[in-house]
Amino acid sequence: MSRNIAITLAYDGTNFVGWQIQPNGVSVQSVVEAAIEQLTQVKTSVLSAGRTDSGVHAIGQVANFRTESTIPLDRLPRALQNFLPDDIVVRNAFEVPFEFHATHSAKKKRYRYVIFNQSTSTPFLRDYAYRHKSPLDVDAMHDAAQALIGMHDFRCFESHYPNTATSIRTISEISVSRHSTWPFATGLENTPISPTSTLADGEFVWFDVVADGFLYNMVRAIVGTLIHVGRGRWTRDDIARIVQQQDRAHAGETAPAHGLYLVKVDYGDEI
Amino acid sequence: MSRNIAITLAYDGTNFVGWQIQPNGVSVQSVVEAAIEQLTQVKTSVLSAGRTDSGVHAIGQVANFRTESTIPLDRLPRALQNFLPDDIVVRNAFEVPFEFHATHSAKKKRYRYVIFNQSTSTPFLRDYAYRHKSPLDVDAMHDAAQALIGMHDFRCFESHYPNTATSIRTISEISVSRHSTWPFATGLENTPISPTSTLADGEFVWFDVVADGFLYNMVRAIVGTLIHVGRGRWTRDDIARIVQQQDRAHAGETAPAHGLYLVKVDYGDEI
Repeated sequence: MSRNIAITLAYDGTNFVGWQIQPNGVSVQSVVEAAIEQLTQVKTSVLSAGRTDSGVHAIGQVANFRTESTIPLDRLPRALQNFLPDDIVVRNAFEVPFEFHATHSAKKKRYRYVIFNQSTSTPFLRDYAYRHKSPLDVDAMHDAAQALIGMHDFRCFESHYPNTATSIRTISEISVSRHSTWPFATGLENTPISPTSTLADGEFVWFDVVADGFLYNMVRAIVGTLIHVGRGRWTRDDIARIVQQQDRAHAGETAPAHGLYLVKVDYGDEI
Repeated sequence: MSRNIAITLAYDGTNFVGWQIQPNGVSVQSVVEAAIEQLTQVKTSVLSAGRTDSGVHAIGQVANFRTESTIPLDRLPRALQNFLPDDIVVRNAFEVPFEFHATHSAKKKRYRYVIFNQSTSTPFLRDYAYRHKSPLDVDAMHDAAQALIGMHDFRCFESHYPNTATSIRTISEISVSRHSTWPFATGLENTPISPTSTLADGEFVWFDVVADGFLYNMVRAIVGTLIHVGRGRWTRDDIARIVQQQDRAHAGETAPAHGLYLVKVDYGDEI
């Protein structure tokens, strides 16, 4: 009997060309598909919630695949892990309805972007947070970000418009907050979804964005735009104007990939 | 006029064969020497406080070199950084007396070993902490570690004895404590030297050891031995007995390199 299996994955995107199979390097997808083939002895294709780019990390990526394998669900993560490198971790496995599709069934996704906001460098975070030396006014950034809440045509934050049929998306939550910890140093299970340890003098600035979908490079363009607010160059009104103008050239730079994490995918009641 | 310059360095040891120049890969020493040569246009050799092994990290390594360069001290770290990769960071520069020798002038060194003590894995710490799945009794480890304080012949913790003329060293401080943070996620300047954020339920176990010198693999052998105490197999008396027996085979395993950090070198009043 064929089952449809969803797995949650955490991975360090540093050494991959991204989720999707590419001609020029190793993708997360290809490594996961190879591991499933080794485990089940059947070639299988895997769908994911979000196609993370090269250097982008995941803590709660969701992927699904169909299999005839009878391996019990509670043993599947460890069994699959045996065929995966250390930089991809299988966190959980669920049996999902036959029609479940990791991409199309997703209701909302949460991305987090992490800035290391300090004048001095550290060699240990170079692949895991974007270092921005100048002080950022996080309160102003958080306030300005609220102008993005709701359903808007977000083509101002879309690389290579048009990528998709529509650039209309709904942002249901966005926050910018200062923290004293890198969010993924502690165990994955303990990653706070809502900021709780905010410290006025923490070196880390977290951007959390929840939406029903994201345009290509959308979170990174939002971060690059809000940095101008944090530096005192733009205001909340400028952010609202940029959205209205629908022109990518009016928004800020695309922030680097290595600060971005796919944190969580919401499928309603399905998993 | 020739100056003797000491620099403090932080580095991620993952992609190096260690501090010392080796035939089989890139060493931190060779990269630092090449950067100094590019900056000063003169080939220079660099001495360090500790020869960290492959995979071992540093947050406060100290190195010195002689130079005719007239570059001001306050501009030297940034100038040198221009010729260094992201995984080596120059933190500070000092002018030191002509006879200062980074190795021989060191009075004490502090190493820290970090265990990620959790049953679930994370892809983000695989090069920066040693994951040990089983729960560790940190109070018992801390208590047993106190048996190592003082001047002892530590050949029981020395790989490939004898490496040096004498195996007698003095441990002036040793602590084992549980924390909720990876110690080097935040800025280097904020790295606590004494444990302050101890939490009974933190996932990180930090071992801090201060001594006048360390034998080859000594900290890693101490950690591997104390893990047996943390698992309830050995007691403080066993640790004292192992030191007295002076036999490496009686102590525990050498813990992996990637959990180890050279934190600080004490030169008295010299820098």
